[in-house]
Amino acid sequence: MSEYSVGLDLGGTNLRAAAISRDGEILARVDGRTALSEGRDAVIDDMVESIRKLRDGQSGRFAGAGIGVPGFIELEKGYIVGSNNLVALEQFPLRDEIEQRLGAPVILENDANAAAMGEKWMGAGRDVSHLVLLTLGTGIGGGIIHHGRILHGALGMAGELGHITVVPNGNPCGCGNVGCVEKHASATAVSAMARLMGFPENVTSADVYEAAKAGHPRALVIWERMGEALGIALANLINIFNFPLYLLSGGPLPAWEFFAPAMLEEVRRRSFTYRHTNTRIEKAVLGSQAGLYGAAYLPLAAGHLEAR
Amino acid sequence: MSEYSVGLDLGGTNLRAAAISRDGEILARVDGRTALSEGRDAVIDDMVESIRKLRDGQSGRFAGAGIGVPGFIELEKGYIVGSNNLVALEQFPLRDEIEQRLGAPVILENDANAAAMGEKWMGAGRDVSHLVLLTLGTGIGGGIIHHGRILHGALGMAGELGHITVVPNGNPCGCGNVGCVEKHASATAVSAMARLMGFPENVTSADVYEAAKAGHPRALVIWERMGEALGIALANLINIFNFPLYLLSGGPLPAWEFFAPAMLEEVRRRSFTYRHTNTRIEKAVLGSQAGLYGAAYLPLAAGHLEAR
Repeated sequence: MSEYSVGLDLGGTNLRAAAISRDGEILARVDGRTALSEGRDAVIDDMVESIRKLRDGQSGRFAGAGIGVPGFIELEKGYIVGSNNLVALEQFPLRDEIEQRLGAPVILENDANAAAMGEKWMGAGRDVSHLVLLTLGTGIGGGIIHHGRILHGALGMAGELGHITVVPNGNPCGCGNVGCVEKHASATAVSAMARLMGFPENVTSADVYEAAKAGHPRALVIWERMGEALGIALANLINIFNFPLYLLSGGPLPAWEFFAPAMLEEVRRRSFTYRHTNTRIEKAVLGSQAGLYGAAYLPLAAGHLEAR
Repeated sequence: MSEYSVGLDLGGTNLRAAAISRDGEILARVDGRTALSEGRDAVIDDMVESIRKLRDGQSGRFAGAGIGVPGFIELEKGYIVGSNNLVALEQFPLRDEIEQRLGAPVILENDANAAAMGEKWMGAGRDVSHLVLLTLGTGIGGGIIHHGRILHGALGMAGELGHITVVPNGNPCGCGNVGCVEKHASATAVSAMARLMGFPENVTSADVYEAAKAGHPRALVIWERMGEALGIALANLINIFNFPLYLLSGGPLPAWEFFAPAMLEEVRRRSFTYRHTNTRIEKAVLGSQAGLYGAAYLPLAAGHLEAR
């Protein structure tokens, strides 16, 4: 009998889930909204309901559900320690609650870790054992895959790559630091820079991309600065890990042609390892599906997960 | 029959080696100089001779030799890709040459990786599975222990933690970068700062420590700057790894009381993970013996080394 699992990706805005077979086929999908304004119980009800719906339609063996959420996760306890987007779910035994209501194994994971696992399983990282993924969005998330597994550290909080310091006296971050790479190279950082340079208040990183395509000098400078900040973080990661592959995903990716030259120049300058090895920095390929694939992979691979 | 190995630590100045038993007892030692001025063959002769001498005196089973060297190592090929201190040994099949002459297994490893392994095996890291070691000397070396093993990355060049950028427009480094932590927080960086502030040309980091103890205001500022730079690198590492233990070793360690307050303030400010977990930053305990222990551990544990 075939085996499948459900991957669920809970963001501050969207709740997405999919039933995925062991060989990586998407069997069914649910796309909804995260009912944050209705409070914690409503969000959890929706999560359980989505997983049940996807499960009811399947005939194979259900391995369990993987759930990706933004923020700092305590893996062993199965709850969210801190999350800018899901404050209502913090410090609550989220995994155990859902596990009990489903009567099936549930794994709670950081969303960027899940996305990195998804790219390793079915995306741009299929041919390597080690990779790092940076997801460029409201912030910057990070996932580290080492020997085919998520690198979790002591409590499951490893991979907070958006909080690497790239400008020691740079922009303040909600984490308490200043100059985090996510405050200089995320989609949000791009639009913040654009506002500082006189773009309209409602400017998006997509607008700044369009402006760069039209040759707008200030837009070109913004992408250059963004590329430099990203390059410093990537050079640090390459010096630390000597992995073969570093992936980028998220809204700003279409602007690759505008930020990548500055990014790669910083990486070349700041990493002996990059200059002397065949290290690839590439676009991730699964887009917003990476998190679904990765979350679904977790219960399927649970027997192989690293002991901590 | 008891088993033992030989650990050899080859620096730009000193060649140290020890026969060490499987349970971590030092059975015999050799302390010599690295005959760099006499050329590559003389250095290799001395290495082989030291290992033979240590081996001849033992009765147990010889598991092989581990050799720690400064610089970028290609682990699989067993040679030094680049090293500021051992240029004469670069791009030469060092491991295979010594292995052939000894007729026993030889493992070549970066010296800071070996020291990190030594602290894990017999030092400050015995009670944890994951740690990072920073060795503060002429430069800053790094070693990452994950699940009890050295994290090597694709080619064995992982852990180049001295080249983490902490001051994007900072001091130039021989690696091609500017603002590497080793140019702002190594023993050499401390004496360079002291010279810039009017200390004598031949000032050492030990002198700057003595000056700080005597209340010299400029010496206190130097240690504060050094602590800040180190703190930025440590905060990055904590955000990336969420490991339970980060160790420091090397000449500047006695000045802990002068640099640690600034270092810990930076770490607290720059790492949510540090503030919310029980993360320890401590002095390593094995001193210059860490590299010998770690190098000796490698052939003893070879069966357990991670496949790559």
